[in-house]
Amino acid sequence: MADKDNTAALRELLAPYARRAEAALVRRLVEPGTPETLADALRYCMLGAGKRLRPALVWMTAEAITGSDAEGDALLERAAVAVELIHGYSLVHDDLPAMDDDDLRRGRPTVHVRFGEAMAILVGDALLTRAFGVLAEGVGDADGLTVGALSGILAHAAGGAGMIAGQVADMGLCDLPDGLDGVRYIHRHKTAALIRAAAEMGALCGAADEPQFEAVRRWAERLGLVFQAVDDLLDATASAEQLGKTPGKDAPAGKRSALTQLGVAALRARIDEMTREAIEALSPLARRARKLRELTERLARRSH
Amino acid sequence: MADKDNTAALRELLAPYARRAEAALVRRLVEPGTPETLADALRYCMLGAGKRLRPALVWMTAEAITGSDAEGDALLERAAVAVELIHGYSLVHDDLPAMDDDDLRRGRPTVHVRFGEAMAILVGDALLTRAFGVLAEGVGDADGLTVGALSGILAHAAGGAGMIAGQVADMGLCDLPDGLDGVRYIHRHKTAALIRAAAEMGALCGAADEPQFEAVRRWAERLGLVFQAVDDLLDATASAEQLGKTPGKDAPAGKRSALTQLGVAALRARIDEMTREAIEALSPLARRARKLRELTERLARRSH
Repeated sequence: MADKDNTAALRELLAPYARRAEAALVRRLVEPGTPETLADALRYCMLGAGKRLRPALVWMTAEAITGSDAEGDALLERAAVAVELIHGYSLVHDDLPAMDDDDLRRGRPTVHVRFGEAMAILVGDALLTRAFGVLAEGVGDADGLTVGALSGILAHAAGGAGMIAGQVADMGLCDLPDGLDGVRYIHRHKTAALIRAAAEMGALCGAADEPQFEAVRRWAERLGLVFQAVDDLLDATASAEQLGKTPGKDAPAGKRSALTQLGVAALRARIDEMTREAIEALSPLARRARKLRELTERLARRSH
Repeated sequence: MADKDNTAALRELLAPYARRAEAALVRRLVEPGTPETLADALRYCMLGAGKRLRPALVWMTAEAITGSDAEGDALLERAAVAVELIHGYSLVHDDLPAMDDDDLRRGRPTVHVRFGEAMAILVGDALLTRAFGVLAEGVGDADGLTVGALSGILAHAAGGAGMIAGQVADMGLCDLPDGLDGVRYIHRHKTAALIRAAAEMGALCGAADEPQFEAVRRWAERLGLVFQAVDDLLDATASAEQLGKTPGKDAPAGKRSALTQLGVAALRARIDEMTREAIEALSPLARRARKLRELTERLARRSH
């Protein structure tokens, strides 16, 4: 019952941002001149599903800094769309047969199952490229330095020292420290880097000062780790219907997860500890961080 | 003999730019924090080989606009590196088993043959992301508007309405006009878009005025078509040793090429005609375009 309340409340908290994200993606996803078959595949994987957590983080962080509603801010919308495009590309490529070989995503056949492997590779490439295109086109909406800085934050988080490093590690393609340190490396790079980038981009658009920016950075880093640790927990305990993807993929593949390293009870305790740290990190933002605190607590307790 | 002279002269023309490109790539390819295995694969596919035509186009176009040597210009170096990273990523992904399934590139095993398919996908993703990261970091070297505009030109040329559209078409994944129009669509998107972007980025860094910019655009578009048409011709007539990749891949795969549409003599005539048009387009740049004219003529007559 508490789980169901939390799920409903989390959905309600994210709903206005999910609506904004959907509308913005409809407008900005497909560049004019894109072949219709590619456009169909892009829409298939990007529209009508997904929590839109990362766009929500862009907007909510900016609103926590400025104290005012960010709807209609063109630069923030670009940042929100760009982060979600990066997230979408990473899912499409991670699901490929040569990577995690997953057939199910958000309750639907994955892009390579639906459109073939070649198209799935190209869809991922197109989403990744479009993310930077959407930002770059913002030189009309904002000063160039901010646009460049947003692009730099995103490229660093998504790149070979960020999210891609996490996937390299998760695929067993590089050396890792033993035990929990190895798991932390994967979580920090594969998931937390982009979540942190979303929050940083929101803070940048909101013209955060240095202490505010540092608070956002510390909070978002921990939030990303909490988010991935909960994912590990759910992967072992939830059903495919709840997850919208194939559960239990990690253990048989011999992948490292926080769960196999810690067990359920210790992982739950670690999630609680990181959640407390995340919320403490928000203290410089005082009352304006109310929604960010609620989001953090609800994400830590989510059941899918 | 004429062929050998042309090959040597083309190499000599490009050599100083190839050296610059190599040095710049060594400096900027691998972000600190990249796993060593990924860094090795990035270096394997990006260093020590390649004509560096696209970086050369960035620098040569800027020099044709400004009339002065562009060596040491940090922004131009970023633009040159970014274009070559996009070119490199496209080769790695195009060679994948699910795409063209090529084993040989620049005389060496392709990335997926050497490092496995998962790593090859991630290498391509990392190169594509790094291209925009290298540009974005340039907000310290130049005004933000120029950086944003460079990123926009590159994202458009490389994206779903540009290079990726060309690969979608080349893979037979979208409808195409019959005959030569279909071939032109593939050439214009798959090859000419990025070649034109390289020249446009050089013109932008060189602060070209509108007539100069338009001249560059018209020239580079035709140069890209010439380049790809010569590729088609060589694919049918040259050996693997000359090409450094597997020749004759296009005909058996049932792919459209200008050659299968036109035959050797008509294709040669078309190359000559487009070469004349390309050189005519340069007339607004007068004497400063001397090197660009030479490059155009030599690329049209290249034998590998």
